[in-house]
This record gives sequence, C-alpha cells and structure tokens, in this order.
Amino acid sequence: MGVWSQTAKHPKVGGVSNDDTEIRALLDRWAKAFADHDINSILSNYAPGNAVVAYDVAPPLQYKGMESYEKDYVEFLARYNGPIHVEYRDMRIFSSGDVGFVHALERFTGKLKDGQQSDMWLRYTGGLRKLNGRWLIVHDHVSVPIDFESGKAALELKP
Amino acid sequence: MGVWSQTAKHPKVGGVSNDDTEIRALLDRWAKAFADHDINSILSNYAPGNAVVAYDVAPPLQYKGMESYEKDYVEFLARYNGPIHVEYRDMRIFSSGDVGFVHALERFTGKLKDGQQSDMWLRYTGGLRKLNGRWLIVHDHVSVPIDFESGKAALELKP
Repeated sequence: MGVWSQTAKHPKVGGVSNDDTEIRALLDRWAKAFADHDINSILSNYAPGNAVVAYDVAPPLQYKGMESYEKDYVEFLARYNGPIHVEYRDMRIFSSGDVGFVHALERFTGKLKDGQQSDMWLRYTGGLRKLNGRWLIVHDHVSVPIDFESGKAALELKP
Repeated sequence: MGVWSQTAKHPKVGGVSNDDTEIRALLDRWAKAFADHDINSILSNYAPGNAVVAYDVAPPLQYKGMESYEKDYVEFLARYNGPIHVEYRDMRIFSSGDVGFVHALERFTGKLKDGQQSDMWLRYTGGLRKLNGRWLIVHDHVSVPIDFESGKAALELKP
C-alpha cells in the first residue's frame, strides 16, 4: 500500500500529522467494517443526519443524508457472499484545522452471491470534518471511469 | 443554482468565509474557461507539476500530474464544437486553514463535433490547497454512476 500523506499544519515526524493519522485510522476501520458487512461500524464513520452527500458508483446521481445512503450500503453488501477485501493504493490525505479530504484507488475483491469472484478497482474521494474532536465523513465520491463511445463502464482497469 | 456553502472557521455574513468565496470564484473562472475552450485559463486553477491527481469521467483510472491531465482536457474539449455551458447544482464548499474541498452536480451542455446536442449531468468533487495565498486544485474527481447489471454508464440521469 503506497500511502503518501501530507498536511500543511502541525507536521509530525515524517510530515504526517495526528489528524492525518486519525483520518487514515478511520479509513482502516471502514475497510474492516466493510469486510465484515458490519453496517453499524460502517455508519459510525459518517456525520449523522443530513450532513452527508454521497456520489456512489451506482445510481442515483447523489444521496442526501444517511437514511438513503445506509440503504445503498445494505444493497451493495448484499451482492456479496462473505467478506469483501478492500485494498487502498496511492492514498493521499490532506487536512487543516477541521476540514480534510482523502483520495485513493480502492480494490474490492470478494465472492458475489451468484458464485462469481469479483475483483475491481474503484476511485474514492472522501471529504471530512472534525466535529467535537472527531473526524467524520461528510462527503463520499466513488466511481469507475466510463467509455463515452461505447457507453460502457470500465470495470477491468488496473492501476 | 442552489449554492450552499459552509465553513467552520472565520465565518462571515451568512456563514460564508472569504476562503469559500475565493473557491467559488475559482469554480466560476473554471466554468468560463471551459465554455471558451481556454486551456491556459483552465490550467491556471490547478497546482503545477505533479501536485495534481485526477480521476476523470473517462479512463484511465487516474492522472498523475498536469502534463497528462492537460492532454485529457484537450481531448475532451475537442469533442465539442463551440461553447460548453456548465451549470452547478447543490454545491457545497468546505475550507479551513489551507485545505478545502468542494462538490457539486455539474450539467454540461454543448454541441458535439458530429452535430449532436449533448446534455449530461456529472458529479464533481475537487480538493484544494491554499498555496502562497491562492487556492488551487490538487485533486479532481468527475464521474457518472454506472449500472452493475448492464455494465452501462447512466448518462441520462437528472437531479
């Protein structure tokens, strides 16, 4: 995992701030929760109520608030049988004061309900705020590139 | 255009900080430059060299640095004949210190080289840093949702 983290303020050893370390820990908690299909642990990384606006890999264009986004998570997890392994690559974390963002390529591997092995790379961007001393996601953007000529999603790309 | 902007630090009248106003101005400059096919004005909104990592709507998975991303812009603009109108909707801007991010739905309308009128909604997330007193984009994420069953891009969605 090639993790490169940078922050302008409060740099610590190696240029990684405590805030960046906390955001990285959040992403690792998220990946573990996702692997375990643990919806409550997934949701604990998000700001509550209507603070979250998410652009997910599948329609609709956007989710506003956690109620609809939670349903989206439940449906996505239900496509898989057993654990879903998440690998991050080329991650960058930026934070200052109480605002941060992170982006990375994400590899999702797992067995689908129909028995097929799924292995795909997605692009992830997260926007975060530090609320009451705790970093929480307020924005997600997850996607795959698409080919304009064919109208097809490019699900086979590898970094 | 439903613009909602929020910042935790240095709130001004209506909760909009100078930094948010500057980020909003950058996005408006970008839209004008894009409409005009003005590649230099587009590029002036980005951090130079290898500071930018971009996930664009079409492959590859990611662009690292402005040299390859500029080529991507030139190719995208070349698909259109004449101006490309950009409309933002549901924009949110977050900034603190020297880090910020923005997300919005973007409607692109224009005439393609083959004479066809194009009208599509994309999702946009931008990550920014304030470098030498000036906000610049260091990360772009642009996408449309895809349908997993058909493998097709959902290019007809409207908010």
